[in-house]
Amino acid sequence: MGPSCSAGFAFETHPHEYRHWRLAIDPPLATLTLAVAEDSPLIPGYKLKLNSYDLGVDIELADAVTRLRFEHPEVRAVIVTGGLDRVFCAGANIQMLATSPHGFKVNFCKYTNETRLAIEDACAHSGQHYIAACNGTTAGGGYELALACEEIYLVDDGNSAVSLPEVPLLGVLPGTGGLTRVVDKRKVRRDLADVFATLAEGIKGKRAVEWRLVDGVFPRSRFSDAVHARALALAAQDPQPKGPGIALEALEPDVEADAVRYRHVQLQLHRGARTAELTIEAGANYTPLRAFRELDDALLRLRFHYDEIGLIILKTRGDLEAVRQADRALYENRADWLANETLLLMARTLRRLDLTARSLFAVVDRGSCFAGSLLEIALAADRIYMLRDSEGAVRLASSPLNGGALPMTHGPSRLQVRFLADPARVDEILSACQPFDTDAAQQAGLVTAAVDEIDWEDELRVAIEERASLSPDALTGMEANLRFAGAENADAKVFGRLSAWQNWIFSRPNATGERGALTLYGKPERPQFNWRRT
Amino acid sequence: MGPSCSAGFAFETHPHEYRHWRLAIDPPLATLTLAVAEDSPLIPGYKLKLNSYDLGVDIELADAVTRLRFEHPEVRAVIVTGGLDRVFCAGANIQMLATSPHGFKVNFCKYTNETRLAIEDACAHSGQHYIAACNGTTAGGGYELALACEEIYLVDDGNSAVSLPEVPLLGVLPGTGGLTRVVDKRKVRRDLADVFATLAEGIKGKRAVEWRLVDGVFPRSRFSDAVHARALALAAQDPQPKGPGIALEALEPDVEADAVRYRHVQLQLHRGARTAELTIEAGANYTPLRAFRELDDALLRLRFHYDEIGLIILKTRGDLEAVRQADRALYENRADWLANETLLLMARTLRRLDLTARSLFAVVDRGSCFAGSLLEIALAADRIYMLRDSEGAVRLASSPLNGGALPMTHGPSRLQVRFLADPARVDEILSACQPFDTDAAQQAGLVTAAVDEIDWEDELRVAIEERASLSPDALTGMEANLRFAGAENADAKVFGRLSAWQNWIFSRPNATGERGALTLYGKPERPQFNWRRT
Repeated sequence: MGPSCSAGFAFETHPHEYRHWRLAIDPPLATLTLAVAEDSPLIPGYKLKLNSYDLGVDIELADAVTRLRFEHPEVRAVIVTGGLDRVFCAGANIQMLATSPHGFKVNFCKYTNETRLAIEDACAHSGQHYIAACNGTTAGGGYELALACEEIYLVDDGNSAVSLPEVPLLGVLPGTGGLTRVVDKRKVRRDLADVFATLAEGIKGKRAVEWRLVDGVFPRSRFSDAVHARALALAAQDPQPKGPGIALEALEPDVEADAVRYRHVQLQLHRGARTAELTIEAGANYTPLRAFRELDDALLRLRFHYDEIGLIILKTRGDLEAVRQADRALYENRADWLANETLLLMARTLRRLDLTARSLFAVVDRGSCFAGSLLEIALAADRIYMLRDSEGAVRLASSPLNGGALPMTHGPSRLQVRFLADPARVDEILSACQPFDTDAAQQAGLVTAAVDEIDWEDELRVAIEERASLSPDALTGMEANLRFAGAENADAKVFGRLSAWQNWIFSRPNATGERGALTLYGKPERPQFNWRRT
Repeated sequence: MGPSCSAGFAFETHPHEYRHWRLAIDPPLATLTLAVAEDSPLIPGYKLKLNSYDLGVDIELADAVTRLRFEHPEVRAVIVTGGLDRVFCAGANIQMLATSPHGFKVNFCKYTNETRLAIEDACAHSGQHYIAACNGTTAGGGYELALACEEIYLVDDGNSAVSLPEVPLLGVLPGTGGLTRVVDKRKVRRDLADVFATLAEGIKGKRAVEWRLVDGVFPRSRFSDAVHARALALAAQDPQPKGPGIALEALEPDVEADAVRYRHVQLQLHRGARTAELTIEAGANYTPLRAFRELDDALLRLRFHYDEIGLIILKTRGDLEAVRQADRALYENRADWLANETLLLMARTLRRLDLTARSLFAVVDRGSCFAGSLLEIALAADRIYMLRDSEGAVRLASSPLNGGALPMTHGPSRLQVRFLADPARVDEILSACQPFDTDAAQQAGLVTAAVDEIDWEDELRVAIEERASLSPDALTGMEANLRFAGAENADAKVFGRLSAWQNWIFSRPNATGERGALTLYGKPERPQFNWRRT
């Protein structure tokens, strides 16, 4: 039995609870050491040998990356290294992959990709520089983890290599951005990348440097000193003091049969209708950091635990002006490290929303408060339905945060993507001091449908039922194509080109059929391929 | 029985032989009228009702688009319209799709995508402006054909609509760039695009204009006059005289059991080894236009008729300096319409090579002539093997055509993509007057492996055998990711993001299983979906 989608594991953890990573803080450095407890898989059924990882290992890594930013802003460089003998990391656990359902594999890869992007986000925007100290075998997802770091150093011991053996050994792609980062980020020449990605044993020593696969090699005797020195040099690049850090509170949601309740976020499932309501409440004690952390957790639960839910209805409750005020405070203090980190976390959460393979309808009704950062949630939706009430009390509003502080994966803001045909509209909306009532919002192009009170319930019900009746696969593909208008960068290529191809390969008999390469890995039988090229 | 991959149909045709299109020339205008002969499918087994198309219809369209450029350069605007009652085009034939094998569907979509891009290429670079005159139902691939045109006009008769009904009716994506062109080219607001692409009946009249789906609507009484006037206005944009046109000679290859022989191009199959040799011979009578047209035809045959061939060995035979000379002549005359058209055709052929889902190894050996435009063929390959001969007679050379005249789908030249890490290298190679012998080519980063004579045969044999042993699906995905480093534009998104998702959806039971939506279309049973979202 592989991982089940209803296993109900949590996405929240804490360094005290880590089973696979050790986090050591020694400002301005920190060290993240991977020593996977092979008998502690997230879901029973496989052994995590040779520092291979499963989702549980990556949940700890994601937690560490986030905590380092909020709780240890004094850390300026993070060394990621292996804690087992002669192995840095062997990548995703094959037994786990081979026994997982298709949807779990896809969501696992998406989550690990998001964690790698969070590492790059910390390097680029938080001044926390990640260095991969590859002190042994660095294979597959292990090398992809290194690729997410700003610099990669490999031990030169005549044996340790970096490799992407997925194509030759497993008949699938490196699933965590490896191919894209090799040619787009590290700019490895494409023919060398081709040789590298088909060479199961990988590349080691000086050749790995010449091919740009790593930034340097050091003999084992001075490996740790050399990496340490390089980390100190990176840490010295940005010597302004930051901190003291803040402790990230536990979220500890109440999980019921058909609901998950947080302080600001409520997730209500309607399993029969295959829909869920996700409501953000911006009440008196509203704090954006907490609210977006809760939203992030709720999205992960939806992805992994409730995959029969096809449509998420996005709602808000609270005071529009209070949300704008909170946004303005963040925007005005964005030079401050904590406001900056809060904005970066909000941006990552919104990108997770964009990348969630469910239909998203935002519903703007009485009592809603889609302003600024919460307006982004509506702008991330596939459609926005807004009630036209007689009082004009239902309103939307922009804030300075809609002007690019919360960018999409491919770079532009959601307003820019929405108004590709009419860029001047973006400035008009940003500079609007007053909220938009329903007619004004429709006029401004902010809503898909403005619906009169008398038609509201029927129109919404029909739209929801229609959406929930369509092919879930076709909707996933359609939404992935309509949400990201504009040129794609390397980050977007990871989720667009690379992940889409991987999804296809995961569903092909040559990989996952009875005689597929992934299925048979580690078994005596050889895979049998249907050789027709597609 | 659906289309078979071994049907052996030809990709060459001529207006005299068209069964589905009528081409009328009336300078500066031309009209392409679609009146599909429903009883003339390319492969028996389905009826082409309601101006729906199959590959045979698109082969004629591609031929017309190419001939208009070469044979009728005096034409400045092309009206594409429907010749049946109240229907412009109903898109790809569903019965054909539902009964075709996966690989055929994927290659069919790729070919139609390339034809649509050729239309856009003519609008952008040949001054031949395409206008879609949608004089009736414009559904699915029919609307995607219109989207490829520079302007779209729809008859306003209270009935005719544009639509993309694939998601709601068939559980697949519009497969010919529709979603990408709606949001990226026409810049339709993403939520309106979402409504449009889930609305089986489509959008008509003024709303279609307001949503940017079409550029105008006219009542039936003055539709043809209004479109005609608009076409004349577009034609007047670029009044410089061109022509007279040249007749494109017939290619008429000799097709044998294991070989296809053209004047300049030889395709030799080694079916047992799952490899083929594709040789371009630049001899005394070498003409680049003919050679690249032959290469294009050979690539299409490989895609459709020989899908068990996993690896194509690219070779050249001839005189390096003669090829450089021919290239220089084209480059120096590029302001001339015919040289311009020749370069554009060569560029399209090379892009078809980049997009061919087979491993490509270029082999640079004695007698080869990989110079300039033929060097691009090597640069399109996944690897370049070069013999290190004792005489130094084996050489590569650049020409001015390597400097951006033959761009990849996403915009940059192949040298730019190859040397992303070291852009200065591009200029060094372009400015090299002398050819590169094997050591110089290796030094310059132009070859993957420079191999001594004594090791040549063995090393090549092992490399070929190894490549041919890997999972064909994993290789397709890997190559699609390594070949296109750099930011993606709308064209590249069609083949990357959109096609990759479509490939996945085509392989899912929700579309093509026994109870899938595509399988059951037109039958009384309703599709049964596995609702899990991935």
